[in-house]
Amino acid sequence: MNFFKSTESADKGARFDLDEALQAIKYNADGLVPAIAQQYDSGEVLMMAWMNLPSIRETLQTGRVCYWSRSRQQYWRKGESSGQIQLLKEIRIDCDGDTLLLLVDQTGPACHTGRKSCFYNIIRNNHLEIGSEPLIDPETLYKQS
Amino acid sequence: MNFFKSTESADKGARFDLDEALQAIKYNADGLVPAIAQQYDSGEVLMMAWMNLPSIRETLQTGRVCYWSRSRQQYWRKGESSGQIQLLKEIRIDCDGDTLLLLVDQTGPACHTGRKSCFYNIIRNNHLEIGSEPLIDPETLYKQS
Repeated sequence: MNFFKSTESADKGARFDLDEALQAIKYNADGLVPAIAQQYDSGEVLMMAWMNLPSIRETLQTGRVCYWSRSRQQYWRKGESSGQIQLLKEIRIDCDGDTLLLLVDQTGPACHTGRKSCFYNIIRNNHLEIGSEPLIDPETLYKQS
Repeated sequence: MNFFKSTESADKGARFDLDEALQAIKYNADGLVPAIAQQYDSGEVLMMAWMNLPSIRETLQTGRVCYWSRSRQQYWRKGESSGQIQLLKEIRIDCDGDTLLLLVDQTGPACHTGRKSCFYNIIRNNHLEIGSEPLIDPETLYKQS
C-alpha cells in the first residue's frame, strides 16, 4: 500500500518512519514538491515555493528554510541575499503526500517587494486591488553593501 | 511590462483590471495554477489543489470553490459528492502571479479522510506523527444514499 494511504486511518499520535515518509512524497517530474510557508503564530500565509528532497533534509537539519529555485535552478536559502530568513517551526505533509506546509517564523517581509506576504493582490469588487504596503523598501532589501 | 511586475510598486488600494489579471496568471503547461485554501476566520490551511481559468471564473461567479481535478481530469466542485462545500470569501494572487490563496468558509472537513485539514502528517521528534482525528468517518462522508 502507498505510504500516505497507510497513514489515513491511523489514530492521532501514531508514529511512522520519517525517512520512509520523505521518500514517499510525490515529487513532480522535476523532483519538486510545493511548499506553503505560514507564519506560525499569526497564521498568515506568506508564500509558496518548491522543495526537493535534499532541501527538505537541509531545512530539517539546520532549522532554516531552504527551497529550490526553479528560475535560478539552485538551492534558495531564504534570506541569504535579503537577510529576511525563515526559521522552521514545523513541517506538515498533506494526506496524499504531494504538498508541504511549513510553519515558520519569518524575519521581516517574506516577499521580494518588501511586503510581509506575497499574497497582496486581492480580487475585490470585480477588480484586482493592492492589499498591503511594503514593510521595507525593496531597494533597501537587496542593496549591495 | 509583465502585469504582475506592474502591480509590485502600486500603493495599497490601487486597482487593476480583473480580466487582465486573470489572464496574466502564470498557468503551467497544463493550464493550471496551484490554489491554497485557508479557513478565512481561523487561519487554518485546509488543502492545496489546482485551478484553471474557467474554474477561477466559475468560483468567482458562484461563490462556491471549483477546482480542476488532475487525477479525474474534470472540474471538481468541492463538496459535490461529500456535501462538504467551500464558500468563497476572497481570492488573492501572489506577487509573481503563479499561486492563488483562497479564503474560504469550509463546511465540515476539507480532507477526504474526514479531517478538517489535509495537513495532518506532522514531522516531530524525527518521526512522522498523525496530528488530528477525523471529524466525520470517511465511510459516512462518501456513502451512497
